[in-house]
Amino acid sequence: MTARGIAILGSTGSIGTTALRVVERQPERFRVAALTAHANGALLREQVQQFRPGFVGLVEPGADADPQWCTGPDCLTQAALREDVDVVVNAVVGSVGLDATLAALECGKRVALANKESLVMGGHLVTAAARRGGGEIVPVDSEHSAVLQCIAGRPGAEVRRIILTASGGPFREWSREQLRHATLADALRHPTWSMGKKITVDSATLANKALEVIEAHFLFGLPYDRIDVVVHPQSIVHSFVEFVDGSVLAQLGVPSMELPVLYALTHPDRIADGGIPPFDPVRASPLAFETVRMDDFPALRLGVEAGRAGGAHPAIFNAANEQAVAIFLAGRIGFTEIADAIEGALNSLAGMPSDTREALHAADAAARRAVRDRFGC
Amino acid sequence: MTARGIAILGSTGSIGTTALRVVERQPERFRVAALTAHANGALLREQVQQFRPGFVGLVEPGADADPQWCTGPDCLTQAALREDVDVVVNAVVGSVGLDATLAALECGKRVALANKESLVMGGHLVTAAARRGGGEIVPVDSEHSAVLQCIAGRPGAEVRRIILTASGGPFREWSREQLRHATLADALRHPTWSMGKKITVDSATLANKALEVIEAHFLFGLPYDRIDVVVHPQSIVHSFVEFVDGSVLAQLGVPSMELPVLYALTHPDRIADGGIPPFDPVRASPLAFETVRMDDFPALRLGVEAGRAGGAHPAIFNAANEQAVAIFLAGRIGFTEIADAIEGALNSLAGMPSDTREALHAADAAARRAVRDRFGC
Repeated sequence: MTARGIAILGSTGSIGTTALRVVERQPERFRVAALTAHANGALLREQVQQFRPGFVGLVEPGADADPQWCTGPDCLTQAALREDVDVVVNAVVGSVGLDATLAALECGKRVALANKESLVMGGHLVTAAARRGGGEIVPVDSEHSAVLQCIAGRPGAEVRRIILTASGGPFREWSREQLRHATLADALRHPTWSMGKKITVDSATLANKALEVIEAHFLFGLPYDRIDVVVHPQSIVHSFVEFVDGSVLAQLGVPSMELPVLYALTHPDRIADGGIPPFDPVRASPLAFETVRMDDFPALRLGVEAGRAGGAHPAIFNAANEQAVAIFLAGRIGFTEIADAIEGALNSLAGMPSDTREALHAADAAARRAVRDRFGC
Repeated sequence: MTARGIAILGSTGSIGTTALRVVERQPERFRVAALTAHANGALLREQVQQFRPGFVGLVEPGADADPQWCTGPDCLTQAALREDVDVVVNAVVGSVGLDATLAALECGKRVALANKESLVMGGHLVTAAARRGGGEIVPVDSEHSAVLQCIAGRPGAEVRRIILTASGGPFREWSREQLRHATLADALRHPTWSMGKKITVDSATLANKALEVIEAHFLFGLPYDRIDVVVHPQSIVHSFVEFVDGSVLAQLGVPSMELPVLYALTHPDRIADGGIPPFDPVRASPLAFETVRMDDFPALRLGVEAGRAGGAHPAIFNAANEQAVAIFLAGRIGFTEIADAIEGALNSLAGMPSDTREALHAADAAARRAVRDRFGC
């Protein structure tokens, strides 16, 4: 057995470092062929020393960049297209991840996809690229990995419905009035998952769950009325699949990205691995489920509506959210203004074209501009 | 598509009537080819009028038997072996079900197995018969069906452990002292499942769960130290499977035998069916899990030890339990005396041969006699 070559795009982030731990535990199966980071040259250098990849890229090089590294945003696609890369772990944050996903799928590679924006912005282009090039998309986030594991190769016609679980985030029990005064520190206090800041805020607004609903639509080919969301504060059940005979399967485990990353590399097989803390149902007990408060978390509703509307709407939703969260993280707007900004962008930019990558990037840029204009940034 | 011929052995019991409801909903896929009942000739006659099977058997005929029906215990095997039968639903209660299971597997048929005793008494003979004849065993009880659905065709080497759930029965929260005074009425008050009396008492002693552990050992080829039991009072999670990568899948649903029966007929496929009440995680919430109280429910420990000991021990465990429960149901012994009787039989009959059907029936008979002698019946 030859070890499969892995490219990790976004290797210094939360998913990227998890992927490196997984690969490190399985040296006979996987080897690091390429690494790219956004701006953390110091950590990238350490990773390069340990894993010795054939290709290294840094999107925004600073003083700590090595002259031999490839630099600039194009390094993502370069890494993805290398001959010695079999699987591209796309753990880049944001819409900048789309091009590398398309490129890898076009040339028949597996994309282990943690970059939600690839499918949210360009789901129709991405699925078309996979069909054309013979590549396959395997999700890395815990919810879609759970769905994939539950479906386990059964035909799509046997799936009646999927139910994505949502932790509910730090504001699950906050009233609408309290939400108006939520601070940045409050939003970053996620109850169950330790993740990057952008995604943590998305979990607080539930925009994250809207992105996942749109992703699920493209990954599993299900219409939106067959994708539900339920709040599950413990984050132990990672999602449910209901089949046409009424049976329901769920995938469970302590909150950890080790398994979704590993499974994205090995799917449909499973390999022995000790990286996941063992599951003890008694310790996990009780498991609670609650109806999602759609009215109090408008970002979820807006995102699902954008998904249903199709075209460039998901890209606008995503870019407006990304820009608004950045402004929120800079401390310049309040928590509820994130959803307000998304709604404003969707209303003002309805009907933009979406049939090419360029059109999607234009919609993305327009949405960001609309949000910046709104707040005078 | 030709409808598959189904034989239902034990058609007037709880599983048998469920199987008929399932077949009735799916007339294009399944037709009733044979029906047998134990002694309820009146209900059998109604079923015959509705489903018009080519073969009818009544094990213990009374005044209401039809002269055209086959009578006596041999009718089970006759029904199983008919040419127009593709799937044998073995829903007979007790060790009398073993011969029909062996016969059907030997001639390459699918056995949808609700008769726990087939595998518990003669697991080694049954698996050998399936191998020899090309037949397949698909479990009908909810726990093993759940495990089968979670494994979903993945190789056995990928399964690390299975965790069978147990409702804990009516005595889950009773102290050891209270258990000594438990009455027949108490034992028949099962909190979540509506089943036959024998199985309901087995759920109260947890002997039922011991039988399921032994069954799981043979069905899934797992050693006993990789089969765990956890108490789950709501009976919503029907069992868990833990894989070698640490991932855990579970199958869930409201307590209903409709799905395990249907799935045993369609496995590995699933067909659209409206017989199972839809699953609502919010209504099912919360799901609790507790450690099983092995010391207070000795029948479980005794059964698993009998399984580990192998040979005729599981058959002795099963027959002693069956006989003791019958005496308990007749109101002649107390609840805790069931386990005492099982332990006595296992101790006095250790080392009996188990290599043939006849040897197993002899062990079975000896265990029953030992229990009757103990109580002077």
